[in-house]
Amino acid sequence: MNVKNDAERPLEVTAVSAASPEAPPGYSLDAFHNGGFYVLQPEAEGHRAGLDAMLLAATVSADATGALADLGAGAGAAGLAVANRLEGMQIVLVERAPRMAQCARMTIEHPLNASLATRVRVIEADVTLRGEARCAAGLADRAFDHVIMNPPFNSARDRTTPDELKAQAHAMDSADLFEQWLRTANAILKQGGQVSLIARPESLADILAGLERRFGGIEITPVCPRTGDDAIRILVTAVKGSRARLLLRDRIVIHEGAGRDFSPLANDLANGGRDWPRRTRRSAQKRTK
Amino acid sequence: MNVKNDAERPLEVTAVSAASPEAPPGYSLDAFHNGGFYVLQPEAEGHRAGLDAMLLAATVSADATGALADLGAGAGAAGLAVANRLEGMQIVLVERAPRMAQCARMTIEHPLNASLATRVRVIEADVTLRGEARCAAGLADRAFDHVIMNPPFNSARDRTTPDELKAQAHAMDSADLFEQWLRTANAILKQGGQVSLIARPESLADILAGLERRFGGIEITPVCPRTGDDAIRILVTAVKGSRARLLLRDRIVIHEGAGRDFSPLANDLANGGRDWPRRTRRSAQKRTK
Repeated sequence: MNVKNDAERPLEVTAVSAASPEAPPGYSLDAFHNGGFYVLQPEAEGHRAGLDAMLLAATVSADATGALADLGAGAGAAGLAVANRLEGMQIVLVERAPRMAQCARMTIEHPLNASLATRVRVIEADVTLRGEARCAAGLADRAFDHVIMNPPFNSARDRTTPDELKAQAHAMDSADLFEQWLRTANAILKQGGQVSLIARPESLADILAGLERRFGGIEITPVCPRTGDDAIRILVTAVKGSRARLLLRDRIVIHEGAGRDFSPLANDLANGGRDWPRRTRRSAQKRTK
Repeated sequence: MNVKNDAERPLEVTAVSAASPEAPPGYSLDAFHNGGFYVLQPEAEGHRAGLDAMLLAATVSADATGALADLGAGAGAAGLAVANRLEGMQIVLVERAPRMAQCARMTIEHPLNASLATRVRVIEADVTLRGEARCAAGLADRAFDHVIMNPPFNSARDRTTPDELKAQAHAMDSADLFEQWLRTANAILKQGGQVSLIARPESLADILAGLERRFGGIEITPVCPRTGDDAIRILVTAVKGSRARLLLRDRIVIHEGAGRDFSPLANDLANGGRDWPRRTRRSAQKRTK
């Protein structure tokens, strides 16, 4: 397994070479969950699905059921990872970019994913649609039990030296993005439904502001490359209408030992071997003692 | 060292018995930093200074200089811990409650603290004072290089089963508290000055909201009782006027091994053996490469 996880770019996992005979020209076919499912991705695209998507999918617990929306699904890796782990779930991949939505459709129709195809479909729509336009696109009010999202982030700031105007523009973009995406998540979730997202720690304030007055029971898990490193991602879950207090959980460490080997936990999460369930849903009774 | 650190109450360290002959009747005299300084505390009070105060003090780095204000200082443990580590710093303990302010004065005047006494003084004032009233109390605009705070929190919610009205009241109190205390911190800090606080993770949204548009370069360190436990505290630092992005650092683990033994890191931080400096100030050049 080839893994890159620099803080400067999305976490990547590439398991099957782009030269695979199963992939159409211009695409790669990447295996996830040790070959449990495959994702077609344009070879030329900068962003490739990987560990981010697998960690996000792991936040949907092993006992989850019902309908799930993957907002900004891209080629569909996170939604398919949930479908592959949880046979009882119906998955909707929501993607605005026509090229990526087409990729997601080709992924679902690929013979290697035949076992998942009947439970996954694509909606080509903008996550920020509101009201009737959103419903008309197929994202009805209170229709979902789970929403997962790996929002796009502008990585320009990470590669440039500080520039106040750019930094401000970036901050506004981030605040708008989480406000709009979490507004949609709230609208399409049933009461008690769970939202999950993976993002950069620098978006924490925007995420908490977007969750406020809509969601409670916020649980944050930092993701650190190695012991002692700053977190490069946060996994956040919350429950619509909950009033439970925020929990900050111990971090997930990606690498242990020499080289680029995954820690046992990260390896299990990356390959669908286990979930990363919420604490409060599992031990609600214990916590009120 | 006798340590209690249940999530339900403040972290406590008690090193010297209340029967010490040095303590006036009704008070205990507690040693910190392996006897580097002592704090007089009323025996009857529920809240006792301890590990919270020592961790907070550690966020003032070994190369810090100038004037420091300890807001809501209580008996003065955190401010005295800074004074004991950093001989170049002038410390102002700000405390509203007359009984605790008196305790802080008696602590400073105690013969065992003679080496610190000339650099520490007490201002009996409410942290939430504004404008001229604040300045008249001795907290002038832009007068300090560092502000540290361990704001009081209402622990009632932790011991009761969920009650929506109480929970709401608590949330509003917390938002007001951080807004008001961070407003004062901002007012009395020089540009580029550092604020440090220790709080519960559930206050994260209120803290980030209070820091917004005043401070940047936010650095959050979770504090977990043991590996795998949820954080029971967060250490937060930020810099007035900075635009650096938020960092979420790897956690501090308090206990390692069997029993209640401190981890080597927690022991060093508790006893003044090392600091917990910010990342960005130390490696600003590296980070812009």
